[in-house]
Amino acid sequence: MTAREVAIFVHGELSGDEAVEILRVAKIEEAGPGDLTFLSNPKYEKHVGATRASAILVSTSFDSKRGSSREGLTFIKVLDPYVAFLRIMKRLTPMPDPFLKGIHATAVVPPSATIGNNVSLGAHVTVGEDAVVGDNTKIAPGCVIGNGVAIGENCLLYPNVSVYHGCRVGKSVIIHAGAVIGSDGFGFAPKPDGSYEKIPQMGIVVLEDDVEIGANCTIDRATLGQTLIKRGVKLDNLIQIAHNVVLGEDTVIAAQTGISGSTKVGKNVIIAGQVGIVGHIEIADKTVLMAKTGVSKSTEPGKTYWGSPAKDHARALKIEVITRSLPELAKDVEELKRSLEVLRNRLSETKS
Amino acid sequence: MTAREVAIFVHGELSGDEAVEILRVAKIEEAGPGDLTFLSNPKYEKHVGATRASAILVSTSFDSKRGSSREGLTFIKVLDPYVAFLRIMKRLTPMPDPFLKGIHATAVVPPSATIGNNVSLGAHVTVGEDAVVGDNTKIAPGCVIGNGVAIGENCLLYPNVSVYHGCRVGKSVIIHAGAVIGSDGFGFAPKPDGSYEKIPQMGIVVLEDDVEIGANCTIDRATLGQTLIKRGVKLDNLIQIAHNVVLGEDTVIAAQTGISGSTKVGKNVIIAGQVGIVGHIEIADKTVLMAKTGVSKSTEPGKTYWGSPAKDHARALKIEVITRSLPELAKDVEELKRSLEVLRNRLSETKS
Amino acid sequence: MTAREVAIFVHGELSGDEAVEILRVAKIEEAGPGDLTFLSNPKYEKHVGATRASAILVSTSFDSKRGSSREGLTFIKVLDPYVAFLRIMKRLTPMPDPFLKGIHATAVVPPSATIGNNVSLGAHVTVGEDAVVGDNTKIAPGCVIGNGVAIGENCLLYPNVSVYHGCRVGKSVIIHAGAVIGSDGFGFAPKPDGSYEKIPQMGIVVLEDDVEIGANCTIDRATLGQTLIKRGVKLDNLIQIAHNVVLGEDTVIAAQTGISGSTKVGKNVIIAGQVGIVGHIEIADKTVLMAKTGVSKSTEPGKTYWGSPAKDHARALKIEVITRSLPELAKDVEELKRSLEVLRNRLSETKS
Repeated sequence: MTAREVAIFVHGELSGDEAVEILRVAKIEEAGPGDLTFLSNPKYEKHVGATRASAILVSTSFDSKRGSSREGLTFIKVLDPYVAFLRIMKRLTPMPDPFLKGIHATAVVPPSATIGNNVSLGAHVTVGEDAVVGDNTKIAPGCVIGNGVAIGENCLLYPNVSVYHGCRVGKSVIIHAGAVIGSDGFGFAPKPDGSYEKIPQMGIVVLEDDVEIGANCTIDRATLGQTLIKRGVKLDNLIQIAHNVVLGEDTVIAAQTGISGSTKVGKNVIIAGQVGIVGHIEIADKTVLMAKTGVSKSTEPGKTYWGSPAKDHARALKIEVITRSLPELAKDVEELKRSLEVLRNRLSETKS
Repeated sequence: MTAREVAIFVHGELSGDEAVEILRVAKIEEAGPGDLTFLSNPKYEKHVGATRASAILVSTSFDSKRGSSREGLTFIKVLDPYVAFLRIMKRLTPMPDPFLKGIHATAVVPPSATIGNNVSLGAHVTVGEDAVVGDNTKIAPGCVIGNGVAIGENCLLYPNVSVYHGCRVGKSVIIHAGAVIGSDGFGFAPKPDGSYEKIPQMGIVVLEDDVEIGANCTIDRATLGQTLIKRGVKLDNLIQIAHNVVLGEDTVIAAQTGISGSTKVGKNVIIAGQVGIVGHIEIADKTVLMAKTGVSKSTEPGKTYWGSPAKDHARALKIEVITRSLPELAKDVEELKRSLEVLRNRLSETKS
Repeated sequence: MTAREVAIFVHGELSGDEAVEILRVAKIEEAGPGDLTFLSNPKYEKHVGATRASAILVSTSFDSKRGSSREGLTFIKVLDPYVAFLRIMKRLTPMPDPFLKGIHATAVVPPSATIGNNVSLGAHVTVGEDAVVGDNTKIAPGCVIGNGVAIGENCLLYPNVSVYHGCRVGKSVIIHAGAVIGSDGFGFAPKPDGSYEKIPQMGIVVLEDDVEIGANCTIDRATLGQTLIKRGVKLDNLIQIAHNVVLGEDTVIAAQTGISGSTKVGKNVIIAGQVGIVGHIEIADKTVLMAKTGVSKSTEPGKTYWGSPAKDHARALKIEVITRSLPELAKDVEELKRSLEVLRNRLSETKS
C-alpha cells in the first residue's frame, strides 16, 4: 500500500511523499526502505533523524519540521502512533486465521437451527435446537451453543465457549475460550432446616453489539428478565457477572473483578482488576474503580474510588499515607501521655 | 391448576376461592383473571386493592382482612412470596429443556461404562472407562467424565464440565459449565537447586448429594484421601477449592472465593465473594465471612468476620470508622504536640 | 521392590535390612509386614516402637538409635519423608491412567499436523493445521490445539484445554482442565466518542519446559512478541497472566492471583493466593508476596511483602497491630485533648 493509503486507513495527516510504497513494518532503529515505523515513546525521538524507514507514524503533537528529521522521510500524524502501527502491521502481515473455513464434518447442527452465510463451525461444535447463527460468524472447536440461542453477524467465538439455552448475542461480539454465558444465577431460599431450595433462574443473558468477553468469564442468566451487557462493553478474563446485572455502553472491566446480583453499572465506567461490587447498587456513568476496590454503596458520576471499603481516591491516598506511619503515630500518642503526666506533676508541684 | 393446588405446591395457607383456576403468572399491576401474582415489596401493597389477578401470594405476616384488598381476591400466605411465585412460574411456563433426550450419536461411551435409565448424554460427551452414570442424569455437550468416575441419579452437568478420573458425584448434583472437578492439588517439594518436584496427587474429589457447583469453579483432588464437598453445599462461580478441603453440609459460598489446602469448613457457613482462606485451619459451623475477608486463623461458631486479616465484624466496623478519619486524628496529634509544647514553655516561665 | 531399591529411588540413606521386600505403603499405626510407612509429624513418633511395618521413611534429623525404635525395623532417611512416601506409593499403587492409549477415532487431526510417537489424543480432541505434538504427549478429551501450535514431548493436557493458534509449549508441561493459553491481551484504544477500538494482539504465549498450569487459568498472548512462562514455573488454578508478562524460572503462584500486562516477574519468586500485580513493573528474584497483596511498585530481591498496597512484611505486621487497636488510640487522643484542656485551665488559674 502507498503512504497515502496508510494515512487514509489510520485517519492520519500525511506530509511528504504520499506515493511511497509501504511493504512492511519495523522498529525505528531497524527499519529500511519500504518500511513503515512509528514514534510513540519520546526517548526514541533521537532515531528520527537516522531511520531508513520510508514513512513514520507520529503523534499529532510531533513537530516534523524539527532539524533532526531525515530528509525525504514521510510523516503520518495520528492520535496514537502505536495503535495505528499495529493496525497497519495486522493488514500487512496477515495472521493465520484461527478459524476453519466452512462447517466441519463433526459439528452437530440440528435441522431446526438456522445457520447464516459464510459461517465457520469448527470441529466438535454443538449447535442447539432452534438456534440461530448470523452471517460471517466464526465458532471455534468445542463450543456449545444452547437451544434457542441467537448469535448475530460477524461474531468470533473461541474454543470451548458455552452459551446456555435462550441467550442472545449481538453483532461483532468476541467471546474468548472457556467463557460461560447464561449459567444459573446464584439464588437459593433458606429452608427451616438450614438447607437451601434452588430459586428457578428463568431469565437470559443478552450481549449487545461490539461486546468482548474474556477467557473463562462467567455471566449468569437473570432470575427473571435479562442480565444485560450493553454495546461496546469489554471484559478481561475470569470476570464474574451475576444475575440481573446491567453493564452500560463502553464500560471496560479488568480481570478477576466480580459484580453481584442486580447491580446496575453505567456507561463509560472503568473498573480495574480484582474489584468486588455488592449487589443492588448503582455504579454511575464514568465512575473509575481502582484495583482491588470493594464497593458496597452506589457511586457518583465521574468520581474515582479506591480501597475496601471504597473511598474517594484522593481521600484514600491521604488515609494510606497516615496508615503507613501508624507505628510512629502510636508512639507519639504514648509520648504525649508521658509528657502530659510529667507536666501534670510539675503543675501540681507548682501549685502546692 | 387450581388455587388449592397452588397452595399445596408452595406449602401455603389459602383464604378465598380455592377452586379458582390459575393459568398464568403476572406482575401485580399487569395481572388479569386467571393470573397468579405476588406481593413481596411493601411499596407494591397499594396495588392489592386494584389487582385483577385471581390469586395472590403474600407473606405470612400480611393482613388480608385489610380494607384495601379487592373483593374476591384469593390469598395464599407463604414464607417467601417471591420464591413461591417463581416456583409456580416454572411449573406453568415450562422452560425449554437445555438437555437432549437420550444419548447423542457422537457421545463416546466405552463398553465398560454403566449408563443408567433415562440418561441424557449430549453431543461430543466423553465417558471414561468403568465410569457410572445414574438414572435420569443429564450431561450436556462437551463434558468429559474421566475413567472410573461415578455420578449419581438426577444430576445435571452443563456444557464442557471436566470430571477427572476416580471422582465421585452424589445424587441431584448440579455442575455448571466449565467447572473442573478433580484437578491436581497444588503440591510441590522444593529441591536443593531451587526447582520443584511434583508431589503425586493420589486422592479424589467427592461431591455429596444436592451440591451445586458454579461455572468455571475448580475443585482439586486430595493428595491422599478426599476433597469432600458435603450434602447441600452451594458454590457460586469461579471458586477455588484446594486439595483435601472439607466443606460442611449446607454451606454456601459466593463467587471468586478461594480456600487453601486441608482447611475444614463447618456446616451452615456463609462465605461472601472474593474471600480468601489459608490452609490447615477450621471455619466453625455457622461462621459468616463478609466479602473480601482474608482469613488466616480458625473461627468461632456463629461469629461474623470482616477485613483482611479477618476481624470480628463489629470490631472491624469500629476500626473502619477511625480509619476513615485518620488524617484528622493525625492532625489532632500534631496539634496536641504543639499545645503541649506551649504549655510546657508557659509552665517553665511560671516556675522560673 | 526391596528396601534398598526404595532408598535408591528416594535418594535416602538406609540402615537395617536392605533386602526386605516392600509390597505396599501404609500409615504408621496400620502398617504390617511388607509395608513401607513414614514419620513426618513428631506427634506420631510414639508409634515408631510399635509399628509392624518392614521399613520406615524418616527425616535426616531422626535418631534411629533411640530406645523407642522397634527391633528389626529398617530406616530410610530422606529430606522429606512424606514426599518420599507419596513417590513410593505412586510407584507401588499405579493410578488408573486418565489418558487413552493411542488416538481416538473421533479426534480430528489434519494431514498438515505432525503427531509424534506414542501420542495419546482423547475423544473429540481437535488439532489445528500445521500443529506439532511431540512424542509421548497425552492430550485428554475435548482439548483444542490451534493452528500452528507446537507442543513438546511428554506433556499432559487435561480435558477441555484451549491453546490458541501459534502458541508454543515446551517439554514435560502439564496443563490442567479448562486452562486457556493464548487468548487476546486486553488492549483497547479509546476513540473520541468514548467507545474503544481493539488493538490487534499479534504475539503468542510460550510455555517453557517443566511448567505446570492449573485448572481454568488464563494466559493471554502478547500484543507483539511473547508472553513468556519460563522453565519450571508452577501455577495454581484460576490465575490470570496478562499480555507480555514474563514469569522467571521456578516461580510458583497460588490460586486466583492476577498479573497485569508487561510485568516482569523474576526467578524463584513465591506469590500466594489472590495477589494482584499492576502492569509494567518488575518483581525481583526471590520476592515473596503474601496472600491478597496488591503490588503497584517494583520489588527488591528476596524481600517479603504484604498488604494492599504492598508493604515490607515486618512493617505491615506492625501497622496491623496498631490498626487493630485504633479505637483505643482514638480514645487516647480524645482523652489527651481533654486532659490538656484541664491542664491549660489549671495553668491559667495558677498564673492569674
